[in-house]
Amino acid sequence: MPFPEDGRQRVVIERVSPEIDAGRFPIKRTVGETVAVEADAFADGHDEIVVRLRYRPADEVAWSEVPMESLGNDRWRGQFPVQQLGDYVYTVCGAVDHFRSWRRDLRKRLDAGQDVRVDVQIGARMMQAAAVRATGEDAVALRAWCERAQRAEPGPLTALCDDETLLALMDRWLLAQHTTTYERELRVTVDRERARFSSWYEMFPRSAATEPLRHGTLQDVIARLPYVASMGFDVLYLPPIHPIGVGFRKGRNNSVTADQEDVGCPWAIGARAGGHKSVLDELGTLADFDALVTAAAALGIEIALDIAFQCSPDHPYVEQHPDWFRTRPDGTIQYAENPPKKYQDIYPLNFESADWTGLWTELKSVFEFWIERGVKIFRVDNPHTKAFPFWEWCIGELKQTWPELILLSEAFTRPKVMFRLAKLGFTQSYTYFAWRHNRWDLTEYVSEITRGEIAEYFRPNFWPNTPDILTEELQSGGRPAFIRRLVLAATMSSSYGIYGPPFEHGWCAPVRPGSEEYLNSEKYEIHHHDLARADSLQPLIAKVNRIRRDNPALQFNRTLTFHPIDNEQLLCFSKHSEDGTNVVVVVVNLDSQYKQAGFVELPIGDLGIADYEPYQMHDLLTDARYMWYGSRNYVELDPQKLPAHIFHIRRRVRSESDREYFQ
Amino acid sequence: MPFPEDGRQRVVIERVSPEIDAGRFPIKRTVGETVAVEADAFADGHDEIVVRLRYRPADEVAWSEVPMESLGNDRWRGQFPVQQLGDYVYTVCGAVDHFRSWRRDLRKRLDAGQDVRVDVQIGARMMQAAAVRATGEDAVALRAWCERAQRAEPGPLTALCDDETLLALMDRWLLAQHTTTYERELRVTVDRERARFSSWYEMFPRSAATEPLRHGTLQDVIARLPYVASMGFDVLYLPPIHPIGVGFRKGRNNSVTADQEDVGCPWAIGARAGGHKSVLDELGTLADFDALVTAAAALGIEIALDIAFQCSPDHPYVEQHPDWFRTRPDGTIQYAENPPKKYQDIYPLNFESADWTGLWTELKSVFEFWIERGVKIFRVDNPHTKAFPFWEWCIGELKQTWPELILLSEAFTRPKVMFRLAKLGFTQSYTYFAWRHNRWDLTEYVSEITRGEIAEYFRPNFWPNTPDILTEELQSGGRPAFIRRLVLAATMSSSYGIYGPPFEHGWCAPVRPGSEEYLNSEKYEIHHHDLARADSLQPLIAKVNRIRRDNPALQFNRTLTFHPIDNEQLLCFSKHSEDGTNVVVVVVNLDSQYKQAGFVELPIGDLGIADYEPYQMHDLLTDARYMWYGSRNYVELDPQKLPAHIFHIRRRVRSESDREYFQ
Repeated sequence: MPFPEDGRQRVVIERVSPEIDAGRFPIKRTVGETVAVEADAFADGHDEIVVRLRYRPADEVAWSEVPMESLGNDRWRGQFPVQQLGDYVYTVCGAVDHFRSWRRDLRKRLDAGQDVRVDVQIGARMMQAAAVRATGEDAVALRAWCERAQRAEPGPLTALCDDETLLALMDRWLLAQHTTTYERELRVTVDRERARFSSWYEMFPRSAATEPLRHGTLQDVIARLPYVASMGFDVLYLPPIHPIGVGFRKGRNNSVTADQEDVGCPWAIGARAGGHKSVLDELGTLADFDALVTAAAALGIEIALDIAFQCSPDHPYVEQHPDWFRTRPDGTIQYAENPPKKYQDIYPLNFESADWTGLWTELKSVFEFWIERGVKIFRVDNPHTKAFPFWEWCIGELKQTWPELILLSEAFTRPKVMFRLAKLGFTQSYTYFAWRHNRWDLTEYVSEITRGEIAEYFRPNFWPNTPDILTEELQSGGRPAFIRRLVLAATMSSSYGIYGPPFEHGWCAPVRPGSEEYLNSEKYEIHHHDLARADSLQPLIAKVNRIRRDNPALQFNRTLTFHPIDNEQLLCFSKHSEDGTNVVVVVVNLDSQYKQAGFVELPIGDLGIADYEPYQMHDLLTDARYMWYGSRNYVELDPQKLPAHIFHIRRRVRSESDREYFQ
Repeated sequence: MPFPEDGRQRVVIERVSPEIDAGRFPIKRTVGETVAVEADAFADGHDEIVVRLRYRPADEVAWSEVPMESLGNDRWRGQFPVQQLGDYVYTVCGAVDHFRSWRRDLRKRLDAGQDVRVDVQIGARMMQAAAVRATGEDAVALRAWCERAQRAEPGPLTALCDDETLLALMDRWLLAQHTTTYERELRVTVDRERARFSSWYEMFPRSAATEPLRHGTLQDVIARLPYVASMGFDVLYLPPIHPIGVGFRKGRNNSVTADQEDVGCPWAIGARAGGHKSVLDELGTLADFDALVTAAAALGIEIALDIAFQCSPDHPYVEQHPDWFRTRPDGTIQYAENPPKKYQDIYPLNFESADWTGLWTELKSVFEFWIERGVKIFRVDNPHTKAFPFWEWCIGELKQTWPELILLSEAFTRPKVMFRLAKLGFTQSYTYFAWRHNRWDLTEYVSEITRGEIAEYFRPNFWPNTPDILTEELQSGGRPAFIRRLVLAATMSSSYGIYGPPFEHGWCAPVRPGSEEYLNSEKYEIHHHDLARADSLQPLIAKVNRIRRDNPALQFNRTLTFHPIDNEQLLCFSKHSEDGTNVVVVVVNLDSQYKQAGFVELPIGDLGIADYEPYQMHDLLTDARYMWYGSRNYVELDPQKLPAHIFHIRRRVRSESDREYFQ
């Protein structure tokens, strides 16, 4: 066993957190956030140590350093801000602090009335060493301290232990020796704010026509933008807009035979007219698409495209690159299957192809094609059926050039697979939210994904419905269920989305009992939507999105906390802003039929509210105001009126004129 | 971002456990144990995967492999035996299993009555590929299967999905492609059995004389060996046997002035006569020491030496290597301090010495000196006041030559420091056991160090007393406290020790109230012990150690489980052997004064005992037998009689002659 490089590195640095899989993967933040880092650090013996957090943008060389503070039990904590897009790197270092040890011991010796003449000389030597390295006024000051120490009178001696300017000078100039640096450099991926806080609206462009029966176009989508903006959404996500395959095309309600008028399923991508880089003729042209991106941007909306890496039998890839697919012994290309089910309209790509580098390069170029047309947000279809190494490489490559990219992973599969995709680089992820109905399930699941290590890399995006998911709760719960799921999605998760207009119009008919597929699903046919319907949830959605924009508390998930409430049908949780000034409390009735009431318990002490102090609960949905006292208060929610409160807590403030008001 | 070497490695391996600090440190086992390894493993899509555990002795090149089994939720488990001393290495690998995927899907297709002619050809191709690689009978068999597949009749087709011999052939010969190997190789340090299961006895050789006043010798220790053996101990640990310093020598009861007759403290190591490689004249010679090692071995006892790396002012190092110590500005050498306390009889070594490599080399040679004289067990004094990198290097070096070494870390300090030393290579560790008295404290602490990750590298050694530790519980609890602490130490921890004869003679007087130091401590003076005392705990200790030897359950800690009991003054726990055949249940009365009774609840279902089935609780301490029924049974312990049960559970077995007996 060889000697280590420097066996005098006496400080140990262990258990740095956050650290994902031994630093294999980065954690995630958005610009302007901070990264709080903790580590175990200690030395042999009884010397004091100094522990520092080092960080830098990954493409810079010089480290910045901030001191870490002791939390007790050899745990240390520090934090640093991330102020630009891209990756940052951080690590922890520490060294024995001889000056602090000396200072601490000198104080004890003086208190015990010991002769400290020799001890003071030890300190003076350290000050001397610091003075030699110091420049300007610091050098002068250190030489002066050194002389005072050598004079060794009781007054100055006390100052040697207590004076903070001396300590600061020594921190600055006494070279820490034998510094231990943690063995790994850890990464943070810094995204833009919308990676964390986003409101998505999904719609089928072909159903956007203003009159019935006509195939909608991208121009119709442009006309639809003010409607989307009126509800406060900032991401408009379109299912695939590419040419749709003809071979084995599915008919209405997923029928295996299509007739002449059937428009097919947008996810059966590719036809003679083109593949993933083309626009379906009926929707318009690339120029129309460019116009849509521009018009949306003017309203603060970004267009998100769907990336579904699979091909219809008519996709140009099939002829150009048959080696990117599996071939069956009879010479045909292997279609998608979930035996005994066959999906003959879909050819999956073969990620075990000998030409996997060619395949990867082409797939990446699909992203690049649309990025260059202004698309910076993608919803990726079934990423869990493509090889994991591809995603890590592809996302890594793309974000090197475009760190502003946002990729939403549509993987409704086993938890570890979903988490792996998030680690590999997906910015946001679909979740099981749609299937979590009761209090226990919601509390457990939402806690799991908003706390601890998972929350460091997995950013949930909650969807009450999608074109594939019409839950039993929405099928049977009526309007209260739609409102409840909207409020839950929009307040529990800082990113959420709905699939409309079926959501705002309360579509709830399944294709058959027990199915989560819509009857007459837009996946297989064109619909015409009457946006002026009196029963539309549009105004409520607009209000919920305005509440999200006005309340920073709802723009993060990290502070989400569930609160006790003595009725299983009621759910209560709160969120607060980083600085604690904005506090939102949400109460939801989980019962679609009946009024439910109970007492909720809030930890008002944590909010700085005394037991005797009244505070105002301002319901931002109804503008009603309630005066609460103490931690335990009554709530009552009638689903036939409104199944949720979104309270903003207002504390009483006494003004100069002694007129009470609530901030 | 470059392409990975093989982007077709579709299987992910994550969260392998056990893994200490990302593989930075090994886990620990003893020869003959197994290592159970778990990992998350999954692939994209729906293919089956195969996951294998790889392992090898660290100094061999070829891996052995065992299949891992799915535990559900993408978790896999496998295990391997460690059969020789030294380090082993393990890791996990996995690949998509196309044959298993094909077999599973073929079954579904057959069940659905589909035309599978093309699918069968896909399987036949795989069998063909396997046949080409196979040799001998396997090749013949695979070719036969291939032909059967190509004939494609319903009967054989079913066999293709179900036949386990075919599956085994394919497992053996179909080359797994694009195998993912976990990114780290993890280590196991394999020690001999005594590293895990050991019974220590500590005594001062100078108090071993058979008559009062005379300074005991190593020859006296030889004469004392039958006594130690009679109690069943297998490690005899001696405080330092080296020349003792004269400068600033401590007198009786740690007095700062010593008179002419004072023998000094054995931990003030070094005098003109020699240092860490010499024997104190009064104790005898190196030849006597060799004789002691040999005589002990004949009784199944190993001699453990104390390694205390510190020096008296008279140690030869002080003159030969003044640079290994800190020098004060007045030219004197820095003595040990805990300001304002001064320990002028001790010079600590300076691990920041410029000649640290020289210092390390010399310290290692101290171990080597005694190892070459037959010592394979060391108790290391205050390892936490020496630089951590030294221990890792020193223990690593030593164990490369002598993997049978056992080092006990005497670090009574903060938990993370104690755990770090265990990670760095110490075989066993002192613990806080001595200060854990009540049920909650014992349960929490013992659970912490016998379960989970900590138990993978930290092996506790429980001591009711040491020359430095006479706990308040022993001072005030009388004989019941001594018995209780003996039983707890010997049954909770597979390694334990006592400091005698003060332990078996019930020494309980502190040097002053509130102190844990003994009055007239053997650390500073010679004692004469009357081993024939009628009140000696010797017979009980002998019985406890015999119980430990007879019951494999007590030779491991991994199965330790606490059981509910409705009296806070009673503690109940069980241990069982790896194979489950030996089960020991311990019940202890934690109250030194009063009889305590309560109902204990045992999970008898886990032991294979039905609710209606009687079972016998055989108290191995008293030989009493109790018949218990069901999970809830009464216990009663009178501290004035015996404050503990050590039960062996005997189940009823029906013999051929229908005469009941209990196994």
